[in-house]
Amino acid sequence: ELRFDPKEHQHLRYNPLRDTWVLVSAHRMKRPWSGQVEKEEEDQVPQHDPNNPLCPGNTRANGEVNPDYNNTFVFENDFPALQPNAPDPGYNQHPLFQSKAARGVCKVMCFHPWSDVTLPLMTLPDIIKVIDKWAELMVDLGSTYPWVQIFENKGAMMGCSNPHPHCQVWASNFLPNEATLSDRCQREYLKTHGEPLLLQYAKMEAERRERVVVQNADWLAVVPYWATWPFQTLLLPRRHVQRLTNLTAQEREGLASIMKRLLTKYDNLFQISFPYSMGWHGAPTGPYLKEDQFHWQLHAHYYPPLLRSAGVRKFMVGYEMLAQEQRDLTPEQAAERLRNLPEEHYKTIEK
Amino acid sequence: ELRFDPKEHQHLRYNPLRDTWVLVSAHRMKRPWSGQVEKEEEDQVPQHDPNNPLCPGNTRANGEVNPDYNNTFVFENDFPALQPNAPDPGYNQHPLFQSKAARGVCKVMCFHPWSDVTLPLMTLPDIIKVIDKWAELMVDLGSTYPWVQIFENKGAMMGCSNPHPHCQVWASNFLPNEATLSDRCQREYLKTHGEPLLLQYAKMEAERRERVVVQNADWLAVVPYWATWPFQTLLLPRRHVQRLTNLTAQEREGLASIMKRLLTKYDNLFQISFPYSMGWHGAPTGPYLKEDQFHWQLHAHYYPPLLRSAGVRKFMVGYEMLAQEQRDLTPEQAAERLRNLPEEHYKTIEK
Ligand SMILES: O=P(O)(O)O[C@H]1O[C@H](CO)[C@@H](O)[C@H](O)[C@H]1O
Ligand SMILES: O=P(O)(O)O[C@H]1O[C@H](CO)[C@@H](O)[C@H](O)[C@H]1O
Repeated sequence: ELRFDPKEHQHLRYNPLRDTWVLVSAHRMKRPWSGQVEKEEEDQVPQHDPNNPLCPGNTRANGEVNPDYNNTFVFENDFPALQPNAPDPGYNQHPLFQSKAARGVCKVMCFHPWSDVTLPLMTLPDIIKVIDKWAELMVDLGSTYPWVQIFENKGAMMGCSNPHPHCQVWASNFLPNEATLSDRCQREYLKTHGEPLLLQYAKMEAERRERVVVQNADWLAVVPYWATWPFQTLLLPRRHVQRLTNLTAQEREGLASIMKRLLTKYDNLFQISFPYSMGWHGAPTGPYLKEDQFHWQLHAHYYPPLLRSAGVRKFMVGYEMLAQEQRDLTPEQAAERLRNLPEEHYKTIEK
Repeated sequence: ELRFDPKEHQHLRYNPLRDTWVLVSAHRMKRPWSGQVEKEEEDQVPQHDPNNPLCPGNTRANGEVNPDYNNTFVFENDFPALQPNAPDPGYNQHPLFQSKAARGVCKVMCFHPWSDVTLPLMTLPDIIKVIDKWAELMVDLGSTYPWVQIFENKGAMMGCSNPHPHCQVWASNFLPNEATLSDRCQREYLKTHGEPLLLQYAKMEAERRERVVVQNADWLAVVPYWATWPFQTLLLPRRHVQRLTNLTAQEREGLASIMKRLLTKYDNLFQISFPYSMGWHGAPTGPYLKEDQFHWQLHAHYYPPLLRSAGVRKFMVGYEMLAQEQRDLTPEQAAERLRNLPEEHYKTIEK
C-alpha cells in the first residue's frame, strides 16, 4: 500500500475546539482556477477623510461629533444588531418554533486617528493602547454580560464597509453558539485529560514547530492542525490565562509585538493589506465570573479568506455548507509559507 | 413594557435541525450600505462554447471527449477532493492531533446540453431527467458509500467557475459534520416527540402559511423559521420520504414543478440569475440502508447569499464566524417577498 503523505492524500482532521472534522485535500491546489477573481482593494486611503464617520472631528449618522482623538476611540454602533431593551418574544412555544429575547450592546472601536494605517503599520505603543482598551471594554461590558465578542472584519471582502482601522465589540445576554461549543469542548477535555486543552496544545506545537508561524516568550501563533481557512491562525498565550483582562503588562507588550509580526507576514504573503475576520475567545463573563473556568484558555482566531493570490479566495460553499469544510493545502504548508516571509512590512521596505 | 414585534426587536430563534440559534435583527435593514458591491454576473453565455469543458462534444482537461449528450451527462471530477484509494494516516494519535482516512468519489453532472439555460428556464420533462439522474446516482454510489452529497454551486459569487448548468456529487466513506448533526437532531426529536421532525414541521408550516413560498400536492418550500441566509429556503415533501430514491413518479413531477416555480421566483427577486448553493439531505446510505432511519425526512436546503440587491450580499463574517449567525430581515418578511413575486420568469415575459 501507498505511504500516507498529507500533501498528496486527502484525509480528515479533528478540530477538538469545535468537535468537528475538516477534509484536507491538498492535491487540489493543482487544479487551474477559472472562477471569480476579486477586485484588488483600493490602496489610496487618505490619512483624514472629511466624509468618513470614523475620523476624528467628523460628524456621524446620528449627528454626534467625534472627539479629536489621539489613539483609540470607542462609540456605540449607530446600527446595532443588539440593543439593551428588546422585549421578550413570549412563552409556551412549540419545540419547532422557539425564540427568546436577545439583549446587548454593540460598540465600534477605532484603533488610530489615521485612516491610512492598519495594525501591522502601527507602532508597538499604539498597538498596546488597542490591547489595553480591549481589556477595559471586557471589564466594563463583562461586568454584566456573559459574552463580550471583540472582532475585526478587515477588508471589503470580509464585509468591512469602512477602511478606517477599527474593530467591533458586541456584548450579549446569552452565550453565542460558538462560545457554547468551545466552552463544552474545553470543559470535556480538561475532565478527560486533566489539563486545559489549549494550554497542552500550545506546549506541543511549540515542540513540534512545523505549524508555528511566529512566537515569543509569552505567545505563539500557529496554523492549527485543524485549520479550515487556508491561512487561518490561532494566537495563544503560553501561560494559562483565562481572559484578556488577566494579561500582565509584559504579556500585553508581547502580544502587541506578535500581532505586528503575524499581521506583517499576512500582508507580505500577497503584498496587499490582507483581509480577514478575527476575534477573541476567553472565559465567559458576567455571572460566570464567579464560577470556575479553569478549562478556558484565552485565544484569538484569525480567519483570512484568500487562497491563491490577492484576488482568488477560498469559497466555503456547496460541499462546505451542506456537508463539511474542505481545505486545499495542508496547515503545515500554510505555516511554512507564512514562517518564511520577511518580518518587515513590504510597504516600509525601501525600494 | 413594549409589545414584541419580530421586525423591530432583535431576538434569537432555535434551529432544531442543527441545535443552534440565529440572531434576528430585522431593524438592521435600515442601515445604509457603503461596503462591497459585487460585479453583476455575465449574462451573455453562448448556447455552445467550443472551449467549455462541460459542453457536448468538447475535450476535457484529461483528454477525454464528452459525448454529444441530449439531457444530463455525468463524469468524474477531474480535480476531485475525494479519491477512492487514499492511504490511512495511521494510528496511535494524540487526542489533539487526530486524523483519519477519507475515501470517496467526486462526480460532475451537467443538467442540459446548452450553456445558456438554468433549471428555472428548462422544461419540466428536462428537470425530471435531472431528478431521475440524481436518484440513479444515489442508488449507485449509495450502495456502498454512507453519504452521497448532491450539491449545486450556482453563480460566480458561490465559487462556481463554469456557467454551464451543472451540479456535483461527492460520495464519502464517512458521515460529514452536517450529516452527523442533522442525523442526531432528527433522531432525538423523534424519540422525544414521537414524530419525525421535518414531517411535523411541514404540516405546521402548511397550516401557518406565513413562511410558505410555494407549495403543491406533494411538496412545500418555506423560508424556515430559523433561516440564516436572507432568502434561504427549505424544500420538503409532504409524505414521509427518507431518500431521493423513494420518490414516486408523481412526486418527481411535483418536485420538478416546485423547483421551477421556486427558482423562477429567486431569479425574479432581483432580475438576475440568482446565485445560491443548494443540496439534498436524506437518510444515510451504504451500511445504513439496513438500519432503521425512520427519523429522517428528505429535504433540500437552498442557501442564497444576496441580501439587498443583485450586487449586495450578506457577509457572514466576524460576529457570525466567531459567535453566532445573524440575519437582517425576518424569515416571514423574506417569505412574503418571494411569495408575492410572479411565477413567470422575467426572461420569458414579453417586453
Ligand atoms: O469544485 P469546484 O466547483 O471547482 O469548487 C467549488 O466548490 C467546492 C465544493 O463546494 C469548493 O470546495 C470550492 O472552494 C469551490 O470553488
Ligand atoms: O457591522 P458592519 O460592519 O456594518 O457589518 C459587517 O459585520 C457584521 C458582523 O460580523 C455582519 O453581520 C455584516 O454582515 C457585515 O457586513
